[in-house]
Formats: sequence, C-alpha cells, structure tokens
Amino acid sequence: MSHVYKKIELVGSSREGVDDAIKRAINKASETMKNLDWFEVSEIRGWIKDGEPQHTQVTIQVGFRIED
Amino acid sequence: MSHVYKKIELVGSSREGVDDAIKRAINKASETMKNLDWFEVSEIRGWIKDGEPQHTQVTIQVGFRIED
Amino acid sequence: MSHVYKKIELVGSSREGVDDAIKRAINKASETMKNLDWFEVSEIRGWIKDGEPQHTQVTIQVGFRIED
Amino acid sequence: MSHVYKKIELVGSSREGVDDAIKRAINKASETMKNLDWFEVSEIRGWIKDGEPQHTQVTIQVGFRIED
Amino acid sequence: MSHVYKKIELVGSSREGVDDAIKRAINKASETMKNLDWFEVSEIRGWIKDGEPQHTQVTIQVGFRIED
Amino acid sequence: MSHVYKKIELVGSSREGVDDAIKRAINKASETMKNLDWFEVSEIRGWIKDGEPQHTQVTIQVGFRIED
Amino acid sequence: MSHVYKKIELVGSSREGVDDAIKRAINKASETMKNLDWFEVSEIRGWIKDGEPQHTQVTIQVGFRIED
Amino acid sequence: MSHVYKKIELVGSSREGVDDAIKRAINKASETMKNLDWFEVSEIRGWIKDGEPQHTQVTIQVGFRIED
Amino acid sequence: MSHVYKKIELVGSSREGVDDAIKRAINKASETMKNLDWFEVSEIRGWIKDGEPQHTQVTIQVGFRIED
Amino acid sequence: MSHVYKKIELVGSSREGVDDAIKRAINKASETMKNLDWFEVSEIRGWIKDGEPQHTQVTIQVGFRIED
Amino acid sequence: MSHVYKKIELVGSSREGVDDAIKRAINKASETMKNLDWFEVSEIRGWIKDGEPQHTQVTIQVGFRIED
Amino acid sequence: MSHVYKKIELVGSSREGVDDAIKRAINKASETMKNLDWFEVSEIRGWIKDGEPQHTQVTIQVGFRIED
Repeated sequence: MSHVYKKIELVGSSREGVDDAIKRAINKASETMKNLDWFEVSEIRGWIKDGEPQHTQVTIQVGFRIED
Repeated sequence: MSHVYKKIELVGSSREGVDDAIKRAINKASETMKNLDWFEVSEIRGWIKDGEPQHTQVTIQVGFRIED
Repeated sequence: MSHVYKKIELVGSSREGVDDAIKRAINKASETMKNLDWFEVSEIRGWIKDGEPQHTQVTIQVGFRIED
Repeated sequence: MSHVYKKIELVGSSREGVDDAIKRAINKASETMKNLDWFEVSEIRGWIKDGEPQHTQVTIQVGFRIED
Repeated sequence: MSHVYKKIELVGSSREGVDDAIKRAINKASETMKNLDWFEVSEIRGWIKDGEPQHTQVTIQVGFRIED
Repeated sequence: MSHVYKKIELVGSSREGVDDAIKRAINKASETMKNLDWFEVSEIRGWIKDGEPQHTQVTIQVGFRIED
Repeated sequence: MSHVYKKIELVGSSREGVDDAIKRAINKASETMKNLDWFEVSEIRGWIKDGEPQHTQVTIQVGFRIED
Repeated sequence: MSHVYKKIELVGSSREGVDDAIKRAINKASETMKNLDWFEVSEIRGWIKDGEPQHTQVTIQVGFRIED
Repeated sequence: MSHVYKKIELVGSSREGVDDAIKRAINKASETMKNLDWFEVSEIRGWIKDGEPQHTQVTIQVGFRIED
Repeated sequence: MSHVYKKIELVGSSREGVDDAIKRAINKASETMKNLDWFEVSEIRGWIKDGEPQHTQVTIQVGFRIED
Repeated sequence: MSHVYKKIELVGSSREGVDDAIKRAINKASETMKNLDWFEVSEIRGWIKDGEPQHTQVTIQVGFRIED
Repeated sequence: MSHVYKKIELVGSSREGVDDAIKRAINKASETMKNLDWFEVSEIRGWIKDGEPQHTQVTIQVGFRIED
C-alpha cells in the first residue's frame, strides 16, 4: 500500500554527544506519538561553558506513518 | 488582512509517480485539516523492487492559514 | 538538564515589512503555545500590487521546549 | 565554435502535473524566442483547493543561444 | 487558467534598510513592466563607510505573468 | 544486521517525462546490478527542440546493498 | 591595483530588528578595525520571550581590505 | 544615490578554460548592453571529446545598473 | 606528483551510532579496494523501532588514489 | 542588553570520533579566548589508513561575545 | 533515442591551476572508460606549501553514456 | 597527533583570472601567518569595466594548524 507520512522537527540535547542527543529526541517523541519510522539529522550545534562543550544539540526530522 | 500560515511536512507515496504522490499527501492532509493553501516539493525519492521503481515518495511542505 | 525542543514552521505576513511579519507570526503562535524559545528565518518573499510590495511574507521556524 | 548562451527563468503552471507545466512554459517561451536549447527545473510547488492540488507550478531555467 | 510567469532578478539599494531596498527595486521595475505579481529575497548585503552601513542591497526575484 | 550500501549516480532520459526517465535509469542499472534498493532524485533537466521539451533527463542516486 | 580582503563573521543583536542588528555589528567592528568595506547577511534568527521577539540576531560577514 | 540593478544569467563557452569563458560571456553581453558592473560565477561544466575537455562552460550572473 | 582520485559514495549502518557507521562503511570498502585516502560525511539518518534509534545510517564519500 | 558576537571557524581532529573532535577544537580555542558561547558543526570528514578511519575532522564555528 | 548515463566523481590535481586539474582528471578517466560526454565542477580546493598554492584539486562529476 | 586547525576567509583579486587571484590571497596571508596548510574556494566573482572582466575576485578559506 501507499502510505502517507508526516515529518516533525525536534532538537535533542545531551551532555554526552551526538548519538545520545538523537536518542533523547526520539525517546521523548515516542512518549506521545506512534509509528515513528525514521529520522534525518539536519543540524548539530551546542553550548560551551568553561571551555568545554556542555550540551550537544542535534536537530532531527522524525517521520511517522499517518494511520488510515 | 495579514494572515499567519503554518507549514507541515508530508511524504506522499505512489506506485504511479510524482504527481500522484503529491495528490495522495494532500488528500490525506485534507481529511483532518482545513484551509490548505499551497505546497512545495522538497524531495523526490523512492523504493526499487525487481529492477522497477515501486514507490515514488515525494516530500512536500503544505501551507495552511491559521484561523483568527 | 537536557531538554527536548520541537520546531514548527510559520509564515508571518505584514504590510510593514520583515520585522513586523516576524512579530505577527510569533504573536499568533503564542496564543496557543507555551515555552516559545527562539526563531530562525528561512525565507523572505511577498506579493506585489500596483508596483508596490503589498505583503511581506517571512517564513520562520519557531522552537519551543517540550515540557517534561 | 564557442557560443554564448542566455538563461531566463520561467514558471509554468498546469492542472495536470509536473511534465505538462514544463511543456507549457517552454511552449510559451518559444512563441517569442528562438534557439531554445535546454531547461533546468529549480522548483516544484503548487496551489491547493478543496483538498486537491489545483495548479502545479514548475520553475525552470531555459537556455538559448545568443545569435552571432 | 494556467498562466506562464517570468522571473527577473533585481538588486534594490537603500540607505534605510532591507524593506526600503525591496520597495525601490519593485518601484523601478514597475515603471516599465506590467503584471508584477510576487518577489522572493535571495541575498542581503551592503556597503560600509566610516563604520556605518551605507547602502543595504537586497537581491530579489520578481515574478510577473506573461500576457496571453 | 548492519549492511553497507553503495550509491551510484545515473541519468535517465525520456521523451515522456520525469517518471519514465526515472524508470529507464533503474531498468538499465538492473541489467547488470543486483540488490537495487532505493533512489533519490537530484536534478531534473532536459533538451528543447522546436519549442517542445524533447528529452527529460532525471539524475538519480541509486542505492544498493553490498553483499557480505 | 589588486587588493586582498579578509572576511570575518559577526552576529549583531537588536531589540528593534534586522537593520539595527546589522548596524550594531558593524559599529562594534569599526571600533577596532579599519577599512571595513562591505557586509553579507548569512542568517537571521532571534530569541522569543512572553510571545514577543526579544532579540533579532543577524549573522553577517564583514569584508575589509588588508593594508599593503 | 541608491541605484537599482538587474542581473541576467549567461553561459560563456571556451576551448581555453574558465577565465576565457567568463570573458567571452561578458564581451558578448557588452555588445548590446550598457553599464555592466559585476559578475558572479554559479556553475562550471563542459563537454568532453576524445578524452579531452572540449568546451568549458561557465555560467555567470551579470549585474548592470538600470538607468534613471 | 599530481595524482587523480576517485570518490565513491557509501552508506554505513550501525546500531551504535555515527562513528561506528563510518567505520563499518570504510572497513567494507577496504575489503575490495586499495589506496583509500579520506572520507566526507554527507548525510546522517536512521531507522526507529519501538521508540529507539535502531540503525544510524551515515552516507560518506570515500576518496582513493587511482594508480598510475 | 544587545551584545555583538564573533564567530571563528576551527577544525578539531580526533582518533576517537565526532564528539571528541568537537571537544578538542573547543578546548584548544579556550586556551587563548574568553566568553566562548556556542558552536555549530559545518563539516565532518577524515583520513583513512589501512582500511580504518584514522582521524575524524570536524569543522565547527565557535561564537563568542565581544566584550564591551 | 533515450540513453542512460552514469556519473562518476573524480578529483584532478595540478600544479598549474583549475583548467589543468580538470584536464588531468578527464585524461586519466579516458584511459579506461569510453563515451565520456560531459563534466561538472563541484569543488575547488588545494594544498599550500611555503606560502604558495602547491596543488589545485578540482572535483568533477564526469558523465558517460552506458552502452546498449 | 591530533591537531587543531583554524580557517580564515580571504578574497584574492587579480586582473589575470582565477588561479592568480587564489595565489595572491595565499601570498598575502603567508606574510603574517605560519603553517598555512590548505585552501577551499567558496566564491568566484568580479568587476566589469568597458565590457571586459577587470578584477576576478576569488573567496577562499585558508586552513592553518594552531601550534601547540
């Protein structure tokens, strides 16, 4: 069948780095949404404090199937 | 008057091709949303099976007027 | 703490220009949403009538914190 | 020989879809211009009415040889 | 009906800023062209003199309908 | 399992339009390659003759799984 | 003569809007640098507070001539 | 004063290379246009024959002042 | 000497994250190719299952020297 | 208050991966600069040796407040 | 007829400059491939030694017709 | 070892063309900086006078190693 998908844009934040920031954004989205299917990274940035990266922020598009 | 619009991102899928995938995404969105006004294509891709394009997937932004 | 943010895309419209179009989009969004945090301009365009710019339309992404 | 070409930007519009919108833009241009040589698609968008795509608008650059 | 549009690229210049530079480019174009319909901003830059922005230059694409 | 994929770039050409050009590129690739999995459109252009689009050329990336 | 220029990237911030943010960045740069020649806007974003844009932040490249 | 400029897109072609292709496009444009002011390169491509680059094609935008 | 390099595009996939996906793509390529020299990341995406990122997919260009 | 920020571009390099390369660039910059505030990743690439990624190189823009 | 083309990506390197780097990449490719048809430049970079550009590296896509 | 690099942006200018403009920017930078390592071209533009390209301006990023 030919499904229709919706994409939303989230920004995950982590003290550990890129992979964990992606995971946190997806975990949060899955609390209230079903059928999450894929993600695409569009931006990596972060905040610096005392000469160290404090929060890595990764912007992702999350695609999910719209139910029929 | 000066309206405000919102844009959402959808991915339509079709066995027939680009035009039909756009149509399916818009048809689906119109089931639950009003005031759909315009669309913008941002990506065309698809899946291949047995040496044939199976599903053409077209990502579109759909703009609609936020009611006052 | 490591928050998760969502970004939505809005198009503000104004007869006065770019700054006012941004303000109108944000004002409208704040009527129904909390925790609006930042915006990013992605497109500036507009309509022309009788040789004058009539409506400046500014597309912005608005980021807001998803509550825990 | 080493020709010089000029490129102009057109937007074709069609109720049928992408291919027809391209064709209409080229047909129109050929009424008043000679030596049309190639086209490049730069944007696909359109208007929605009653939950259906009404007009597909395809922006193309059309290249033509400047005569010596 | 399905119109065909042409887009031309203009650079407006103003001592006052972005909105006025857009307006000046459109005003100038409308002296010799009809059916101007929309504009899209593609670049904002300018010249500096004595530590002040002197001329803001805004590049816009102006779309107009080709008459039948 | 975690596969590795390779992407190649092809240009399909068709007198009929975008969908057929995609199909022709994929058909040709499948003559000599296995495991073709997905495609992504990166460019649509074409040649003009006698005021008509003659050949629509669609550039696609085709991804296929590298066998273990 | 054929000069060499250097470009630096600044972010100006203003409560008033885009034009003032550009001006503030250039004013600041001119306190310590000479020969500022042109600027190019690469990003417009800002912070939101209580449903209003608080600070418009404009990223600009500033070009200046390296003295011989 | 605050001038308005127009930009047109040309493709120069040369057997010698990039610089000569730029020069040829500008020379050709100057035969019929006045006030040519600056150019911007947007694409470099070319044709191959017998394992050698035959024609280097450079696409440039040429800006010129619209007279008052 | 002035070498010529070729670039191929690979997609590595990993349950662990970005760094491991890059490593897997390069390991796989090195099984059949010599002189691999550098890589460039062009896309990071992945699949989601049960609210967790399952496979991180990293698209890389791999450059290698063509032997004389 | 409305601060002015400067952005510089650094390339961090690491044998461990993306997160560590970001950290190394920021650590190095903080040895000689104050008020480092945020970073933005613009490129991820690296060198390959013996079929393994040797150095991951991450290009980042680092923003810092210019003191009044 | 409607041909199918393949595009490969090469990096030519030269001590003389851009044109020669393009030529070297095409010459090398033609040693082992037939039907080379066109090229597109996607990146120009290079190495510096003792304050002089040593090697100009030009990345090109080379298109060639797949034989029937 | 894992070095950290800084990138600065320069615009070289030449009456002769692209290669010479790159060389002039690098020569100038090397008068006051050490460890210049590589360059990347990001823009080619120029000024026109009397129907001839007068100055070709090439914008390059120059990377250099930060000393330990």
